[in-house]
Amino acid sequence: MRFFSDNAAPVCPQVLEALTEANVLDTAYDGDAWSKALDARFSELFETRVHALWVPTGTAANALALAALCPPYGGVICHRDSHIQNDECGAPEFYTHGAKLMLVDGPQAKLAPDAIDALLGTIRDDVHQVQPHAISITNATEYGCVYTPEEVAAIGALARKHELGLHMDGARFANAVATLGCTPADLTWRAGVDMLSFGFVKNGGMSAEALICFRSEFATSSLYRRKRAGLLLSKGRYLAAQLLAMLDDDLWLANGAAANAGAQLLATAAGDRLVYPVEANEVFLRLSKEEAAGLREQGFDFYDWAEGEARLVTSWDQSEAEIKPLADAIAVLG
Amino acid sequence: MRFFSDNAAPVCPQVLEALTEANVLDTAYDGDAWSKALDARFSELFETRVHALWVPTGTAANALALAALCPPYGGVICHRDSHIQNDECGAPEFYTHGAKLMLVDGPQAKLAPDAIDALLGTIRDDVHQVQPHAISITNATEYGCVYTPEEVAAIGALARKHELGLHMDGARFANAVATLGCTPADLTWRAGVDMLSFGFVKNGGMSAEALICFRSEFATSSLYRRKRAGLLLSKGRYLAAQLLAMLDDDLWLANGAAANAGAQLLATAAGDRLVYPVEANEVFLRLSKEEAAGLREQGFDFYDWAEGEARLVTSWDQSEAEIKPLADAIAVLG
Amino acid sequence: MRFFSDNAAPVCPQVLEALTEANVLDTAYDGDAWSKALDARFSELFETRVHALWVPTGTAANALALAALCPPYGGVICHRDSHIQNDECGAPEFYTHGAKLMLVDGPQAKLAPDAIDALLGTIRDDVHQVQPHAISITNATEYGCVYTPEEVAAIGALARKHELGLHMDGARFANAVATLGCTPADLTWRAGVDMLSFGFVKNGGMSAEALICFRSEFATSSLYRRKRAGLLLSKGRYLAAQLLAMLDDDLWLANGAAANAGAQLLATAAGDRLVYPVEANEVFLRLSKEEAAGLREQGFDFYDWAEGEARLVTSWDQSEAEIKPLADAIAVLG
Amino acid sequence: MRFFSDNAAPVCPQVLEALTEANVLDTAYDGDAWSKALDARFSELFETRVHALWVPTGTAANALALAALCPPYGGVICHRDSHIQNDECGAPEFYTHGAKLMLVDGPQAKLAPDAIDALLGTIRDDVHQVQPHAISITNATEYGCVYTPEEVAAIGALARKHELGLHMDGARFANAVATLGCTPADLTWRAGVDMLSFGFVKNGGMSAEALICFRSEFATSSLYRRKRAGLLLSKGRYLAAQLLAMLDDDLWLANGAAANAGAQLLATAAGDRLVYPVEANEVFLRLSKEEAAGLREQGFDFYDWAEGEARLVTSWDQSEAEIKPLADAIAVLG
Repeated sequence: MRFFSDNAAPVCPQVLEALTEANVLDTAYDGDAWSKALDARFSELFETRVHALWVPTGTAANALALAALCPPYGGVICHRDSHIQNDECGAPEFYTHGAKLMLVDGPQAKLAPDAIDALLGTIRDDVHQVQPHAISITNATEYGCVYTPEEVAAIGALARKHELGLHMDGARFANAVATLGCTPADLTWRAGVDMLSFGFVKNGGMSAEALICFRSEFATSSLYRRKRAGLLLSKGRYLAAQLLAMLDDDLWLANGAAANAGAQLLATAAGDRLVYPVEANEVFLRLSKEEAAGLREQGFDFYDWAEGEARLVTSWDQSEAEIKPLADAIAVLG
Repeated sequence: MRFFSDNAAPVCPQVLEALTEANVLDTAYDGDAWSKALDARFSELFETRVHALWVPTGTAANALALAALCPPYGGVICHRDSHIQNDECGAPEFYTHGAKLMLVDGPQAKLAPDAIDALLGTIRDDVHQVQPHAISITNATEYGCVYTPEEVAAIGALARKHELGLHMDGARFANAVATLGCTPADLTWRAGVDMLSFGFVKNGGMSAEALICFRSEFATSSLYRRKRAGLLLSKGRYLAAQLLAMLDDDLWLANGAAANAGAQLLATAAGDRLVYPVEANEVFLRLSKEEAAGLREQGFDFYDWAEGEARLVTSWDQSEAEIKPLADAIAVLG
Repeated sequence: MRFFSDNAAPVCPQVLEALTEANVLDTAYDGDAWSKALDARFSELFETRVHALWVPTGTAANALALAALCPPYGGVICHRDSHIQNDECGAPEFYTHGAKLMLVDGPQAKLAPDAIDALLGTIRDDVHQVQPHAISITNATEYGCVYTPEEVAAIGALARKHELGLHMDGARFANAVATLGCTPADLTWRAGVDMLSFGFVKNGGMSAEALICFRSEFATSSLYRRKRAGLLLSKGRYLAAQLLAMLDDDLWLANGAAANAGAQLLATAAGDRLVYPVEANEVFLRLSKEEAAGLREQGFDFYDWAEGEARLVTSWDQSEAEIKPLADAIAVLG
Repeated sequence: MRFFSDNAAPVCPQVLEALTEANVLDTAYDGDAWSKALDARFSELFETRVHALWVPTGTAANALALAALCPPYGGVICHRDSHIQNDECGAPEFYTHGAKLMLVDGPQAKLAPDAIDALLGTIRDDVHQVQPHAISITNATEYGCVYTPEEVAAIGALARKHELGLHMDGARFANAVATLGCTPADLTWRAGVDMLSFGFVKNGGMSAEALICFRSEFATSSLYRRKRAGLLLSKGRYLAAQLLAMLDDDLWLANGAAANAGAQLLATAAGDRLVYPVEANEVFLRLSKEEAAGLREQGFDFYDWAEGEARLVTSWDQSEAEIKPLADAIAVLG
């Protein structure tokens, strides 16, 4: 049983079905009926007028967002353990044309306003130093923790004060919303977020993520950048259809909640072994080499993380029955 | 009936089926069984060792290829009417970090060796002028014409002489091979091609094209550039599966031939109205405004091209019965 | 006697003297008294508030200007024979991060409004095509001809209508102003120019050109880009001092007029041989191979240009006595 | 008396004189006699065949070197306190087209092989993470300390083992060589350095630094990149002449030694207050706010550095008599 990554999970039946339904003749690129419906559907979800662009990866969504918010000669403040810094092979630098990521530490892979303030205090306001133009936060974070709407709003206020754009990497946005029980609006634009990478692939989608632009001036340039990056698929209806299927009946939220529930089963079993609070679908726990080997012998697969730590990721399709054996095996370790 | 674009056509049943079959748990990105099979399967097709990378668009394939062949301070020789110059919103400039496209004219959107030579003759060999590093040709061309293996080889020889890389934009490679009856090998690496954008989406695929690297040094850098560009989908098996399905039983070639056959029906009907020889699945014909309006009234949709010209594109899924009405309507115009 | 290039000429005594005077302790970069005086001095010259940045080359000035006016995904309309297209090794593409130069033809290397309009008419307003964001004109042009204030204003009006920025490459701005007898203001911002590369090096300077920003929003980003490009010399006072010396007593204008006068001597001698009207310090004339060889035998050096054409460039330091021998030798050819 | 920066110092008389001597007609750009002499003169100094390119700033030299050594998708290992990271407004990212600086800590702003090794150990060898392609060290360092030839060689060996290029930022190379008493060759290519930014401006020059390429493949691309960056001054002879004047009679070394001697005077006075060993022309010392204010009242100018620290920089032109008052004032503080 694999607890490696939510990317390994299969695609949700509703998404697959949507592909079949979209398999008719229509206009190329994003001129089709499905793509044209996105702005309205996401605007409804977010209770405000947004522009929604499908893109094939979260990396693309993140990089496009940062390119909209930060000029080539600027900087983006982010966590030292963020995906944009460590796992995207320099995509932010590519899309922004060389902006600098400015790294901040903080527990749970979260940025705290005072840590951002401290970084800002070290930057001389002259042309010799790269000046920050944006902040990027990840919700849920790399360590499966969430920012509350209030926490985001505190960062949003700081961003406004310093005239910085605010991006949210929401690869696991659904998991965060499911945990928090808040509205998508409260967690984003009402808290000052300008651009959101809204993830669907880890959550049951196949190949479509959404870049949500809460300010229309960023949407226009992003449309050109998307094409210029080779991200404008010629049969876009198959991406748009996935997103629409995920929005129908709030499937995205149900899937996020399902994955979270699986993680809670494991968290309960792990008890004191937990490295971070489990607030999404990732469980980081202390595990000795021998313990890890023992679990693997029983057929459970997962990543080693830091020395003496392991990461378990649950996904939308794992039932309690599928997860329970691992939970039991962990509980047995004591 | 739409004759706008082969991008508007639906996806082939075999491809859809392959998606369903791939809908199981596997490793993320390109670590899955399908993705890992690509090099071998394409190597077999091309009768030599190649590296094959799936990408979601032809624009991405083209831009990655050019980035591998040309440094930021170099130039790429291409036709004035090429897709990379006119229809990719500057993707080559983005991926190469600012290389210059050097435009050459020629009938049928084809580059002739002497036209390339003439351009080369105008470039001073000093640091003030951008120096060419690559040639890019399109086969079949923007105007539905083909380069024969001999024609490609003549350009390949010129490329070698001047130490230029050679890229082929094969968005309609299947159509070209189907028309020429040659092997894929003869039309590419045996003729000096270094990188091929092998198109599948216009030919019945959904969202996967192949970047074929005939020299391994270009594959390595392309793997990093693909990730960095946000093109490495996290569930890559759904792209690889499409490509494998298209290779099975040479579906790609059958689809290309089917689209070509439809174009021949139209070409025969068009007779003297043809602007270019019809050698793939595109038909350019002279059509007055009134004639075009008349055809549209009968329910046929297509693009106006230059003044007094129209473009008709046929696709893999159109039967003779579906095309005949348009052929007849054209024949009636006289 | 060399008529190759005004870059080959020595530096004006006033400029050399200014270097010696600046050879004292002062603040680094552009914090010194000389650099700080530039905005005011150029504002006076241009009769409006401008920002003036020293840079070491005209290529740098041009590229910085274009980067301010055009986003990476945009295009810059310019003449096919412009310096930015042919002689800067892709500097505009480097600084703009891959914008596309959109080439227009026209006699005397001048852009005419209707030729620009014709180009604009060919560009589809969709994300597949690079959209123009700026126009760049050269005054005096590559062929030694000038745009009048009215001609610039016509282009400026077109630029405003289409929301395009307007840049003037003024490598030989002094020569143009000297010929036209107009004010610098009339030839630039009053005619709609947003950014001017004001050349001094060809006109007696050593290593300092000025980038003039007529709109302050462009100045701010240019200050960062200048540093980021390694163009912010650490002892900037030596560049600023050159510019100030050239402005003193309108030395720049006197030098431009002197070079122009030399060219007129040659133009008169050349008569019907002239390829273009001589309106600055360049003379293009028809010259057979034998005639060219004959002149070279007499000790005159110059560039061959197109087949059967030669280019003669005069500079600020050449007296009538120095030029007359060549004028006489040309006149003798008949 | 200013102890702010060696950039504030005036230009050496020999350099000024060289400018006057170069003030004759010659070929433009780097085609003149002075520029052409550089390769040979620097090859002699370095006891091996090198290519030497003049550039107007150290930032430009550094950025060109990194662009030659590292592809856009790669990384450059450097010290957290290095100039390329903190003081060049992202020039490395601009010239490399978005490579990532990978920061390492270490005392005295020096990189130690084991610290580099530790960083390398954290990078997964997959396409998701930026892979390092080069190491950049600064000698003398930002804190006025030097790497010995043996220390450089240890890093050079590590670089070779991991197939990384090695760049040395030698803004104060002269100061380092003067302190070490070694040959320039021993401190560079014999220790594995591929590219050197050889600084002259802080050391008495006006506007010319040298980029030294120890491997010819890097020189070719750098020539194009220099032009493309707008760094190829049209009257290059005035830069080349400065460098030649500095090489004559080892003026560069004498100037470096002179500045070092001044720093030693201050170091002796500072005694236990020193934060770092004084091995070049910079002195970092502990100084309370009150003490700093006291010194400033006496007419000494300098930068505050970290909390409770100050930086004093001496330059080539300061005699013992000029420095002694400050040394005495510091000694008095006890």
